[in-house]
Amino acid sequence: MRARNLAVVLGEIRDAGPLTRAALAERTGLTKTTVSKLVSDLLDAGVVAENGAVRDGERGRPGVAVRLSGHRVATLGLEINVDYLAVCVVDLTLSVRLRRTKAAGNRDSRPERILAELRSLAESALMEAEAAGLRVAGAALAVPGPVEHGLLRNAPHLGWRDVRVTDLLDLPLEAAGPEARNFQAGNSEAAGFEAVGFEAVGFEAGNFEADNEANLAALGELWFGSGARDFLYVSGEIGIGAGLVVDGSVFRGTYGLAGELGHVVVAPDGPACRCGGRGCLEVYAGQDALLGEVGSIPELVARLEAGDPAALGACDTAGRALGLALTSAVHLLDPGMVVLGGVFAPLFPWLEGPARETLSARLGQMRRTPPRLAVSAIGADAAILGAAGLVIQRVFADPARALGL
Amino acid sequence: MRARNLAVVLGEIRDAGPLTRAALAERTGLTKTTVSKLVSDLLDAGVVAENGAVRDGERGRPGVAVRLSGHRVATLGLEINVDYLAVCVVDLTLSVRLRRTKAAGNRDSRPERILAELRSLAESALMEAEAAGLRVAGAALAVPGPVEHGLLRNAPHLGWRDVRVTDLLDLPLEAAGPEARNFQAGNSEAAGFEAVGFEAVGFEAGNFEADNEANLAALGELWFGSGARDFLYVSGEIGIGAGLVVDGSVFRGTYGLAGELGHVVVAPDGPACRCGGRGCLEVYAGQDALLGEVGSIPELVARLEAGDPAALGACDTAGRALGLALTSAVHLLDPGMVVLGGVFAPLFPWLEGPARETLSARLGQMRRTPPRLAVSAIGADAAILGAAGLVIQRVFADPARALGL
Repeated sequence: MRARNLAVVLGEIRDAGPLTRAALAERTGLTKTTVSKLVSDLLDAGVVAENGAVRDGERGRPGVAVRLSGHRVATLGLEINVDYLAVCVVDLTLSVRLRRTKAAGNRDSRPERILAELRSLAESALMEAEAAGLRVAGAALAVPGPVEHGLLRNAPHLGWRDVRVTDLLDLPLEAAGPEARNFQAGNSEAAGFEAVGFEAVGFEAGNFEADNEANLAALGELWFGSGARDFLYVSGEIGIGAGLVVDGSVFRGTYGLAGELGHVVVAPDGPACRCGGRGCLEVYAGQDALLGEVGSIPELVARLEAGDPAALGACDTAGRALGLALTSAVHLLDPGMVVLGGVFAPLFPWLEGPARETLSARLGQMRRTPPRLAVSAIGADAAILGAAGLVIQRVFADPARALGL
Repeated sequence: MRARNLAVVLGEIRDAGPLTRAALAERTGLTKTTVSKLVSDLLDAGVVAENGAVRDGERGRPGVAVRLSGHRVATLGLEINVDYLAVCVVDLTLSVRLRRTKAAGNRDSRPERILAELRSLAESALMEAEAAGLRVAGAALAVPGPVEHGLLRNAPHLGWRDVRVTDLLDLPLEAAGPEARNFQAGNSEAAGFEAVGFEAVGFEAGNFEADNEANLAALGELWFGSGARDFLYVSGEIGIGAGLVVDGSVFRGTYGLAGELGHVVVAPDGPACRCGGRGCLEVYAGQDALLGEVGSIPELVARLEAGDPAALGACDTAGRALGLALTSAVHLLDPGMVVLGGVFAPLFPWLEGPARETLSARLGQMRRTPPRLAVSAIGADAAILGAAGLVIQRVFADPARALGL
């Protein structure tokens, strides 16, 4: 009951704060005594802060209002991409406090080595967060493939199959509890990681969870993007994934494996795909197909701007293939709109036309209008932001459990 | 509060009955007085019945147990298919009390005429139900196309676009209330329909709702089929639709238009489809493609059993196309299993092999195993059963509102 009331009070402060204790009691139906005790616990944990005296409604009595605080509790977002590792720290007010990306050659790599590199990147992020007075309440990891119960099923471009990413990252996670809350500043560099820790969020896989980067990128778009609550986020990377958001929630399917847009069949007799199938969207519109002999996405954009016929042709092929795959996806998933992210974001001006044209021609009369195609404003950061945001969502859902209150 | 308690008590009786009033009080945390009053109202409405004296637990005191009754409250399921109209009456215990199918040529038809025929079919069903002492608490209608806010968007095989099916059926619906509950038996045939009415369920569109037949057939499979709670129900008719059930709920997408498996692209340069697209699954595996020159599904089955090469070839083509479309659908929707229904049910022995083979070969390494393919045991009745079952679900969710209690 206390845990639920704590979540209710924190939710009101987030959604409608700053609020006085009296206003909180009125909104929640809880007694003022109960509210005061809960607010006191939230203040101690640094989740909320006092705002100074404000006038409380019309009666004119001054009161101290409480608002969400970004100064103490934060979460960690992590990503293993085929050609980079990334990390970010986001505070409870959804401000991005830190963001680091490290180029890496992760194709056909050994999981142990990559996870050790990621851990090292996470450690320095945690130390920086600690130095800024932040307490990291939990972490989530984005990986380029479907995750079932903490097991990365298949990431064809990494060459990983059935890798237990949550265990292998081997983070020194502590159980929630009063000990975990005594944040020890001033540790030595070596001990710092353990001391800061990934304190206790107590989710399925302890205080740490992993998911397909497309699902997390969709959440990133939801919480840090345009504000839309119904869309299919299409993540264009070396692989192509998608995350469907319906009324603010990600649709995950039965086993959490939904949204594999990259392996929708575009041409039944097309070239072999790394997944084992043929003619998948990825073969025509994945980063490798888009780049061809070109070295990088910025270089490709430069060539497109200069009117290079090979570059324009690659985008035309990719855009049409995308339109075809989206036709099937729109029929099956019924998204509110389609948001193109990842490497599709900088290439949007060249992909949009052929994709839209194909989609409109093929969707035919089944709908009044095809869903709108839009470009993601958060681009390559969507997955780490969504990962950090997911842990923040867990904190709001059950602050008592997530923060050991 | 009373409405919620009524639903809680009725739910306990359904899930764990027969139960004494004392056992109900213990299970729900309500007082015995409250339980007795609620049970009395449920008895008056005929929703539950008394079971005679039973022993109440270990104390050995005999008590009168209450169980769900199938004798009074029932619901109506209706279907407009391209070549038939159908109706069923199902009681609260999910027993099918009546089922009627009427062959009809509904291709490129006028909605008004078909809806008048359906109304006439519904009227005789209601009179039969009345004669059996049943009170019909509401109705749902299955149509072969996506429905948005009571509007059938597009049923290409009927030739209907943007038809307001809920209004056009023009049922004499009454508001919930004591008058509506005084079931008048013995009316003349002409007045019978109005008197029995579609008494007051008070949903979005009054006491009557409509949905895509594939969604309702999926619910039919859920409530009257194998007992599985995670599956993609594939409805093979003249059109092909699908309804995804995840943990017992239908996934409907953003606008309720999800699951249009029949228009997943199987061959980008394939023949034109009635939807306006090209190479859709329906072109290869819809009833028209399966039948060719053959007059009916039973005749096709006879030819298949006799080894007719044209019939076998048609099923092989359809099965492979189905496997291709299901590859994309499994990647996007992540179903627990795939259940083939409608005309695919009698043809399952000939479709299963090529569909399974295609699906297994193409799904590749993305999953440990492809989802299981199974045949629906309820075949062509799935949609009307699901429609009637949906209204029963509404009754259990809010008996006070649905029955005017």
